[in-house]
Amino acid sequence: MNENILNPHYSELPESYLFSTVARKLADYKASHPGAEVIKLGIGDVTTPLVPAVLEAMHKAVDEMGERSTFRGYGPEQGYGFLREAVARGEYAPRKVEISPEEVFISDGSKCDVANFQELFSADARVAVPDPVYPVYLDSNLMAGRRAVLMPARAENGFQPEVPHEKVDVIYLCSPNNPTGTVLTRETLERFVSYALKNGSIILFDAAYSAYIRDEKLVHSIYEIPGAKHCAVEFRSFSKTAGFTGVRCAVTTVPKELEKLRKMWFRRQSTKFNGACYIVQRAAEAVYSEAGWPQIKAVIDGYMANAAMIREGLAQCGYTVYGGEHAPYIWWKLPAGEKSFDFFDRLLNSCEVVGTPGSGFGACGEGYFRLTAFGETAATKRALERIRDRLK
Amino acid sequence: MNENILNPHYSELPESYLFSTVARKLADYKASHPGAEVIKLGIGDVTTPLVPAVLEAMHKAVDEMGERSTFRGYGPEQGYGFLREAVARGEYAPRKVEISPEEVFISDGSKCDVANFQELFSADARVAVPDPVYPVYLDSNLMAGRRAVLMPARAENGFQPEVPHEKVDVIYLCSPNNPTGTVLTRETLERFVSYALKNGSIILFDAAYSAYIRDEKLVHSIYEIPGAKHCAVEFRSFSKTAGFTGVRCAVTTVPKELEKLRKMWFRRQSTKFNGACYIVQRAAEAVYSEAGWPQIKAVIDGYMANAAMIREGLAQCGYTVYGGEHAPYIWWKLPAGEKSFDFFDRLLNSCEVVGTPGSGFGACGEGYFRLTAFGETAATKRALERIRDRLK
Repeated sequence: MNENILNPHYSELPESYLFSTVARKLADYKASHPGAEVIKLGIGDVTTPLVPAVLEAMHKAVDEMGERSTFRGYGPEQGYGFLREAVARGEYAPRKVEISPEEVFISDGSKCDVANFQELFSADARVAVPDPVYPVYLDSNLMAGRRAVLMPARAENGFQPEVPHEKVDVIYLCSPNNPTGTVLTRETLERFVSYALKNGSIILFDAAYSAYIRDEKLVHSIYEIPGAKHCAVEFRSFSKTAGFTGVRCAVTTVPKELEKLRKMWFRRQSTKFNGACYIVQRAAEAVYSEAGWPQIKAVIDGYMANAAMIREGLAQCGYTVYGGEHAPYIWWKLPAGEKSFDFFDRLLNSCEVVGTPGSGFGACGEGYFRLTAFGETAATKRALERIRDRLK
Repeated sequence: MNENILNPHYSELPESYLFSTVARKLADYKASHPGAEVIKLGIGDVTTPLVPAVLEAMHKAVDEMGERSTFRGYGPEQGYGFLREAVARGEYAPRKVEISPEEVFISDGSKCDVANFQELFSADARVAVPDPVYPVYLDSNLMAGRRAVLMPARAENGFQPEVPHEKVDVIYLCSPNNPTGTVLTRETLERFVSYALKNGSIILFDAAYSAYIRDEKLVHSIYEIPGAKHCAVEFRSFSKTAGFTGVRCAVTTVPKELEKLRKMWFRRQSTKFNGACYIVQRAAEAVYSEAGWPQIKAVIDGYMANAAMIREGLAQCGYTVYGGEHAPYIWWKLPAGEKSFDFFDRLLNSCEVVGTPGSGFGACGEGYFRLTAFGETAATKRALERIRDRLK
C-alpha cells in the first residue's frame, strides 16, 4: 500500500479514542491484579436491564420477523413512521415544541449522527466546540481536516461556554453537558441562538442526557428557545434515556425551517445508512408507551439516587463536586496541581475504582475527574467507602 | 443559515438516491391506481422470514437484556468476540482462507461500511468504480469531492471490468456483481490484485452476494487470490445471506497485512460508531450454528429457484438475460434503443411489475433492467405470466 493515499488527518488525532485508552489501562491493571474487584464508574454505560415494556415489544417484533405476513426487510431510511410519531409526541409535545415526524430521523446511535453530521458542511467551515466536552465532536472534525475553535467552560462561569469572539459556522453544544453534568441556562442558549441567527451559523445541540433533568423549568430541547428552529439541529438518544447503549437507537431532528440541510441529511442517510433494526425501532416506540414511560422514569430515578449519593459522599470527604443534579455525571475537582491521568492511576491503584480523566475531554477538563451514576447502587456505595477509607 | 458553509459536493449528486427515486415512482403509480396489485422485483430486498435458529437466538438475547446479570451495555466497538470468531470460522475457514477475529469488524450494515471506508483515504485519492454497479461507491465518493474513473463492464467481455489504464489508488469491485449478477473470474481478480500490488492501490471488495454462488470453484472471497491480503479490504453482509435487511449486520475485513489501514478503521469505528446491537450480533452468530446454516441455505435455494424461473421465463419470451446463476439478480437486455427508465414505466403500466432501471447503476447499465429473485415465488411467477401476456 502506498501510504500517501491515506487521509493525512488521522495522524493528527490523539493516538486512540479516550474510552479505548481507559479500557486498555483497566485491562492492564486487571491482568496484573487477577481477582481484583474493580468498580467501574468510568464510561457512561448503563447497568440496569431493559424495562418490561421494551422487552415485550422486542419479543413481539422478533415474532413478527418470523412470519412471512409480518416480516420486515429494509425499513424507511428515515425511520419508521410509528417511531417518528412517537418521538414527536413523547419528546417534543410535552415541552410545547412543535416538531413533525418529517423532521425526525431515526438512526442506530447519537454517536454516529453527531460524528457524521459534519459531513454536510464544507471542508473549510469554521467549527466551535465547548471545552471540556464529549470528544467525538472534536475528533470527527479533526478527521475531516477541520481544527475547532474551543469555547472554555469553567467553574467560575458556572461551566457556561461563552459565544465565540470570532465568526464560526458550526457550533456544538451539549446540555446537560458531558462531562461536567451542567445544564446550559436559558440565557446561555438565547445568546447562542442569537449569535447563530446573526452569523448564519448552525448549532448542533446534543441533548443525549435531557431525560436526567429534574427541574421542569430548565431547557430540555433547544427548540424551546425562540428562533432555534432556524439555526439548530438536535440529537436525542435512547442510550441513556432507556438503557439502549447495547441496543442502539437515536434521533436527529432537522427542522423544516432548515429545509436545505434537512434534504442533505436525508440524502446522506439514504446513501450511507440503511435504517435502524426493526426490532430496535419497536423497542424505542415502547419507551413512550403508557406502560413504558413510568418504567423508564423509575430507572432514571435510580441512577439519579446514585448521583446524589456520589455528590454527598465526595462532599463529606471534603471534595468539591459539580454536576450530578440534572445529569448522571459528577465532575470532581481534584486537589490543586494533580493531573487527571495521574489521578486515574492513583484511584485505580488505591481504591480499585475507575473513572474518566477530565483532560480526556479537553484542556479545560484538566484537574477534574468524571464519575458516572450508571453503576449498580451497591457497587457505587462500595466505591465511595473505598474513596473515604483508602484514597491517598 | 449561510448556505456557503455547506458541503458543495452534494449539489453534484444525482437529485436522489436511485432506490428513493424508484420508490417515489411506485408511490405515484399506486396513488393514481388504487387497488393495483403491483409486484415488486425492484429493490434487492428479501421477503422470506428469519430462520428458526436466528429467531431463537434473538429471543434468548432479548431475555438476557432483561436480567441484570446478563444485561449488556456498550459492546466492543469492533464487535463481540463470539461473532468475530464465528465469522472467521463460518465465512473464511471453509474457503481455506486464514482470517483471524482481530481482522474482522462487525457493523450495522455493509452499506454503511462501504460508504464510510473512503474516509480513510486522502481527498485527492484517485478512485475507480465498475460501471454498472451499486451506486453507493460512486455517490459516497462524490459527496467527498472525488470523481471516479469508471471501469466499463459489458456483455461482450462477460461483464468483467478492465483494470484501469491510468494509475488509481482505490478500486471498488463487487462480485457477484450488483446489478449484472456476474461473478468475477479468478483471472480477472488476479489481474486486479496484481495491478493493486504494483501500484500500491487498495481494492475494496464487496462480497455481499457471495452466499448465492452455486459453483464451489468460483471465487467467494478476494483472499482466495494470492497477494490479496496485502491490498484488499472485504465487505460481507448478513442482509442477503440471512435475510437481515431489516435486522442490520455486516462484516468488514481488514487484514493485518494492512495494519495501518486496520488501525485507521478501528479509529474511525471507535470514534464514529458504537457497535451493532447485541441482540443482532447473537442473531448473526446463529447463522453459522449447526441448526442455522442449513436453514439459511434452504432460504437461498428458494431464492435461486426464483432466479432460474425468471431466467427461463424471460428466455422463453425471446429476451436475452444475464446473471441469475450465482446471484439473486437477473440482468435483462432491453430491445435495442429502449431507455431503461422508459422501460420502467412501460413495465409498470402494462404489467404492474417493478424492476430497477439499468442506467441507475451507471451509463453502461443503459439498455438493461434489473429484476431480483427476492420476491415471493407465487408473485414472481405471476410477474412472468404478465410479462409474457401483457408486455407491449
